[in-house]
Amino acid sequence: MYPQDAGQGLKEIPFPQAEQVKIHGRTTRGLDFLPLLWNHSGIEVNCTGAELWVALEVDCGFHEPWVASELNGALMSRQMLLPGIREICLYRNMTPGVVKNVKFYRELQAMSEDDRCHVLVKGFFTDGEFLPVEDPPYKIEIIGDSISSGEGTYGATPDTDWLAMYMSSSRHYGRLLEKMLHADVRIISQGGWGVYCGWDNDVRHNIPSVYEATCGLATGDFNEKVLRTQEPNDFASWQPDAIIVNLGTNDASAFEQPPLEVPGVGVCKQRKNPDGSYVREDQEKVIRAAEDFLKMLRRHNPKSHIVWVYGMLGYNLTLTLSEAVTRYRQETGDANVAFINLPCTKWEEFGAHMHPGYAAHEVAAGVLSDYLHSVLGMDIHKFSGNL
Amino acid sequence: MYPQDAGQGLKEIPFPQAEQVKIHGRTTRGLDFLPLLWNHSGIEVNCTGAELWVALEVDCGFHEPWVASELNGALMSRQMLLPGIREICLYRNMTPGVVKNVKFYRELQAMSEDDRCHVLVKGFFTDGEFLPVEDPPYKIEIIGDSISSGEGTYGATPDTDWLAMYMSSSRHYGRLLEKMLHADVRIISQGGWGVYCGWDNDVRHNIPSVYEATCGLATGDFNEKVLRTQEPNDFASWQPDAIIVNLGTNDASAFEQPPLEVPGVGVCKQRKNPDGSYVREDQEKVIRAAEDFLKMLRRHNPKSHIVWVYGMLGYNLTLTLSEAVTRYRQETGDANVAFINLPCTKWEEFGAHMHPGYAAHEVAAGVLSDYLHSVLGMDIHKFSGNL
Amino acid sequence: MYPQDAGQGLKEIPFPQAEQVKIHGRTTRGLDFLPLLWNHSGIEVNCTGAELWVALEVDCGFHEPWVASELNGALMSRQMLLPGIREICLYRNMTPGVVKNVKFYRELQAMSEDDRCHVLVKGFFTDGEFLPVEDPPYKIEIIGDSISSGEGTYGATPDTDWLAMYMSSSRHYGRLLEKMLHADVRIISQGGWGVYCGWDNDVRHNIPSVYEATCGLATGDFNEKVLRTQEPNDFASWQPDAIIVNLGTNDASAFEQPPLEVPGVGVCKQRKNPDGSYVREDQEKVIRAAEDFLKMLRRHNPKSHIVWVYGMLGYNLTLTLSEAVTRYRQETGDANVAFINLPCTKWEEFGAHMHPGYAAHEVAAGVLSDYLHSVLGMDIHKFSGNL
Amino acid sequence: MYPQDAGQGLKEIPFPQAEQVKIHGRTTRGLDFLPLLWNHSGIEVNCTGAELWVALEVDCGFHEPWVASELNGALMSRQMLLPGIREICLYRNMTPGVVKNVKFYRELQAMSEDDRCHVLVKGFFTDGEFLPVEDPPYKIEIIGDSISSGEGTYGATPDTDWLAMYMSSSRHYGRLLEKMLHADVRIISQGGWGVYCGWDNDVRHNIPSVYEATCGLATGDFNEKVLRTQEPNDFASWQPDAIIVNLGTNDASAFEQPPLEVPGVGVCKQRKNPDGSYVREDQEKVIRAAEDFLKMLRRHNPKSHIVWVYGMLGYNLTLTLSEAVTRYRQETGDANVAFINLPCTKWEEFGAHMHPGYAAHEVAAGVLSDYLHSVLGMDIHKFSGNL
Repeated sequence: MYPQDAGQGLKEIPFPQAEQVKIHGRTTRGLDFLPLLWNHSGIEVNCTGAELWVALEVDCGFHEPWVASELNGALMSRQMLLPGIREICLYRNMTPGVVKNVKFYRELQAMSEDDRCHVLVKGFFTDGEFLPVEDPPYKIEIIGDSISSGEGTYGATPDTDWLAMYMSSSRHYGRLLEKMLHADVRIISQGGWGVYCGWDNDVRHNIPSVYEATCGLATGDFNEKVLRTQEPNDFASWQPDAIIVNLGTNDASAFEQPPLEVPGVGVCKQRKNPDGSYVREDQEKVIRAAEDFLKMLRRHNPKSHIVWVYGMLGYNLTLTLSEAVTRYRQETGDANVAFINLPCTKWEEFGAHMHPGYAAHEVAAGVLSDYLHSVLGMDIHKFSGNL
Repeated sequence: MYPQDAGQGLKEIPFPQAEQVKIHGRTTRGLDFLPLLWNHSGIEVNCTGAELWVALEVDCGFHEPWVASELNGALMSRQMLLPGIREICLYRNMTPGVVKNVKFYRELQAMSEDDRCHVLVKGFFTDGEFLPVEDPPYKIEIIGDSISSGEGTYGATPDTDWLAMYMSSSRHYGRLLEKMLHADVRIISQGGWGVYCGWDNDVRHNIPSVYEATCGLATGDFNEKVLRTQEPNDFASWQPDAIIVNLGTNDASAFEQPPLEVPGVGVCKQRKNPDGSYVREDQEKVIRAAEDFLKMLRRHNPKSHIVWVYGMLGYNLTLTLSEAVTRYRQETGDANVAFINLPCTKWEEFGAHMHPGYAAHEVAAGVLSDYLHSVLGMDIHKFSGNL
Repeated sequence: MYPQDAGQGLKEIPFPQAEQVKIHGRTTRGLDFLPLLWNHSGIEVNCTGAELWVALEVDCGFHEPWVASELNGALMSRQMLLPGIREICLYRNMTPGVVKNVKFYRELQAMSEDDRCHVLVKGFFTDGEFLPVEDPPYKIEIIGDSISSGEGTYGATPDTDWLAMYMSSSRHYGRLLEKMLHADVRIISQGGWGVYCGWDNDVRHNIPSVYEATCGLATGDFNEKVLRTQEPNDFASWQPDAIIVNLGTNDASAFEQPPLEVPGVGVCKQRKNPDGSYVREDQEKVIRAAEDFLKMLRRHNPKSHIVWVYGMLGYNLTLTLSEAVTRYRQETGDANVAFINLPCTKWEEFGAHMHPGYAAHEVAAGVLSDYLHSVLGMDIHKFSGNL
Repeated sequence: MYPQDAGQGLKEIPFPQAEQVKIHGRTTRGLDFLPLLWNHSGIEVNCTGAELWVALEVDCGFHEPWVASELNGALMSRQMLLPGIREICLYRNMTPGVVKNVKFYRELQAMSEDDRCHVLVKGFFTDGEFLPVEDPPYKIEIIGDSISSGEGTYGATPDTDWLAMYMSSSRHYGRLLEKMLHADVRIISQGGWGVYCGWDNDVRHNIPSVYEATCGLATGDFNEKVLRTQEPNDFASWQPDAIIVNLGTNDASAFEQPPLEVPGVGVCKQRKNPDGSYVREDQEKVIRAAEDFLKMLRRHNPKSHIVWVYGMLGYNLTLTLSEAVTRYRQETGDANVAFINLPCTKWEEFGAHMHPGYAAHEVAAGVLSDYLHSVLGMDIHKFSGNL
């Protein structure tokens, strides 16, 4: 459908014919549209046109997807999407013939237990051409929880509703790493989930269980049958130089929460000793889950440097997670795996919903870029101007 | 029109019945809709509903309006508007009964010589009520050029197209002053214009000529006949505590530009002497224009403190403008008028289109808040978290 | 000896009679002078006089001691001391009767294998009185290597000589913690030393071997016989709320250095596997040393929270040290011990001699104050003005 | 006199034979010692020795001189000097043969009405040689009051005594400009003085009256007869690229102070009108004094760019000073003179004695380096590491 307010002379480029479009994030290929399944999933184009639109089909229930767009690396727009066929103008009236680099991406994590939260890219409208988008020198995969879903990066400090609008990848340490290291970043994350269990002791809410499918979090008829989210992810097509596992915050929370009756599992509860330390048996569950997850990551990413990072919302599980990494290294002999803390969010760096704000993400990106520079030799580029 | 994707049970509140809505920015009253005429013009509500929409009628040609929304003081969304009847969801699925403070405002200056660039607020949809919005302790009026239109606050440093999307009030020293000083801020600005003439010597492009009407910049049939933009502004209804005049950058530019044939006026050219100084006769034109403007400002704002600020894009006209302020004070005996420099934008603080980026606006807000604190006793509030 | 340039009417207060003087740092009591044995060891007085001097006896060979003084919490002076009887004026011509808080402290670590590097406080000269110095709410002990000796906190980045003047406690994370947390800080540190061995594989250079004596590093006739540095430290007299162990950087270095023939021990060498990981047997040596050190610390400080911090010059030993802490906790059941990383020094934060500069110490103090706030409830005080 | 604690084999280099020593600051030549007359006056050497001492003769009464030393551009030491013949070790035990750049300078302004406050450099002791010190590309002269005497750059915010120790050039915008712009900086300043009168209306306390002599502030027998401070300054020997006049703060203060009986002059009082503005007649005195001073500066520095800067402690005299600059330009046709504000010190940037702290000097240096870059093309160099 020709966009209602578009300029004259735009031509439609259906997604399957948009060959020069670069796709960001895990997704299902071979459809005649592109599903943006994960936070920061999106498209990138080098467009010569004076005007560019993206055509979308959107679906949602309680949690509406948000999207953001960048022009030549700078954030331009961020908005809520509601259901329907929609065309969004990414820019207009720019100098024709000059190449504009445009990114358009989802600002919302994949929503588990929600078969009605979709952003499907159907195609583009432009009066210009798409030129190839060169790959930057590095690829980084981030695996995490609400911190890596960017929860709290938008929103006032006192705000405590649990809503899509407080999450983002536009004010996210992952996006900062893209700019600082000249890298492509993928984010696999889910708020409230852990490596062994969720914040409330729900053992079903562990990231490893969903890591191997294209988008294991996305269940239900449409997700599974149409978007084929449960098919094995094509790991060979995108091997990251570094994998940042930012998990553990919810596993730590479980020790503080009451027991939970999990259907089909029974009562779950991570226990503490009277002196406040973790009951060894329960701590072992986290350790084993983390070890197993590292094995899974290594299986699918044979050469990636893996660094487990932890601490942005408290250091409680530091020894547990480092023990898991140590044990994994000892059992497998794989020395390409590390553990480091990220600094805990200071009170003035908090954003909405008691989560790290943008300032805390800037700190994390500083530590991580320095780490990746020293371990993998990634150059750090200073940026000035608006981000 | 009930919004296509809205929740159940919303009721429409047409603008004329939305009595508790606070209006920001100069506008025309008595219409059955609210025209958002100036940058940062908008509405603010305290809403108890779980969901809130604003209903708009939008019109544009080359330059499309952009809008932004805040929730409890934090920026949530920024997007391009294209023509049509549109409902925009400002939030949804929040806790009913709890008061949410929402601001929705124009991110684009009034566009001169453009009768097709309108954002009209027609009403609201919500399942809650609007409660009164308390006035903060201070009112500040900002009068300026592209700097005060926020040009360059979005966009990459190399971007040089002259487009609406690079302007904002969301990353603007005016918005920062609102947060730092607990103030309401109005912005009267036009890119390329000066106090005497525009950047290219066009003497028609002076802010004083448009200051006294509601929106003197907005001409043409629709603007004048429907929106009544050329009617005298109702100054009595909103008397600022301080007026910040941030003009002169384009008057300085004119001395560097070639002569311009202005229809109905003749050839205009601000001249320099061989040693680089300004020809006194031409400098006098700026001084007289500035003096006259100060008289106009005082006429309409008898008690406001007026501070002329200058320097964010170079200090060249510092002596000229301070001479004007001095002469005004001497002629009128009015001592409630001052002049100060704002620091020039450093290279790493530049945003798009060779204009001050967000970092430069933060510097300006720091100097201005300190100034207004020391001269008018306005308290400075530190904010933490996302802005 | 009455100071040569002192004002009229000063009275001498020999050290043994200076009862209201607060002593900072481990030292030997019962002498008729006060030896400043460790970095940041010093005195603090609340003096009503218009003028105050400290009388010193100084001794040194290659490495001369440096000292610093603070007035009301702000650094005033930093200077080199050379041998002799010396009186140093700490302030003069101030308002008599008003209380001035003055700190005077050593800026140099205890120098091992050096029996000629002493700063002995013999007494004071003032025209006023000494009033009691109130204890701040917290006590913190820092145990470390060159980082905690403040090496590199003074000096230009390219400077690489190994000299006393590049070390300090005045630009040190310990001093920043004093100001941020209102705490007294002791520093037990030695450049080049580790928990198991020194940077060059010298197993004699481990901090645990010197921890239990008053100043185990200070050997030789004068140190041992006159200053009694090898007598057991009186732990009961000063029990810290928190012990920060910042060791490991040199233990990590040993794995990169060639074998070393250590007299009486044989060839020492911490080895790496072909894949770059540490040979388990050698890693175990570090782990056991760290475990044993934690036991020693707990023996002498039964209730102190102990946090091992690591990372300011690289993260290589993170897993080794966290394994040690884990093992200690499991073996002893003592849960009052933690491990966290400090952020690695970024290139622009480096000081002299490839060591963390003052900027890096500010980062470390930020992370540590936040940690101690969240774990022990220590309040964080913002300071403004000169430090 | 051979320094008491110096190493073996040092040779004495009396000042008159120290030909490669670079002299900073206005001084009297032809003596057999070097008087350090002004704040930041000092010496700079490139020394190949392992050890270096400076030999001094010091004199003082109430206000003792302070000095600082830098090694390779980084501050190493700051200390009080009291009367006597003194040798100060600037470094020792460094690698012989390697060139060390050392600066040693006075941290205290010239003290008016004080014939007993002298630092005389008598010579050096070293085991190496002095190599030539290359001139940096720029020369800058700073003329000012207590702000430019660095008052408050050391000391706690509540400290209010008026003492030498709170002044410095080591934490001074002038020193920062040296590092940022690669420049040599001279400082001509006196606390409490203005361009027309002092803070208390004393019209004798104006900088122009002392500018033309080598050190017009230094009167009395020793100053005048031995140091020949009242002889005409040799302007030809050091022509600055830029002159920064940072005067006016005390002239503004005079309007707020009570009348003063000045011996030989009568009652002096700068008056305000009932509305708080300045009485024109008194304002004219400041304007004429500033104009005359600009003429004097131009006479002695024909090609220097002159910029009057003002505002670090309030903007009250902005219009008065800019009027003076304007009038000077109009009368003389000299366009190489400018006026700009420096940002007012924010409360968290204050140092001791209600004066700008180091943080405020950093802000001023940022604005000034940017200004000098844009007007004179001086490159700005980022520094990292300790300063």
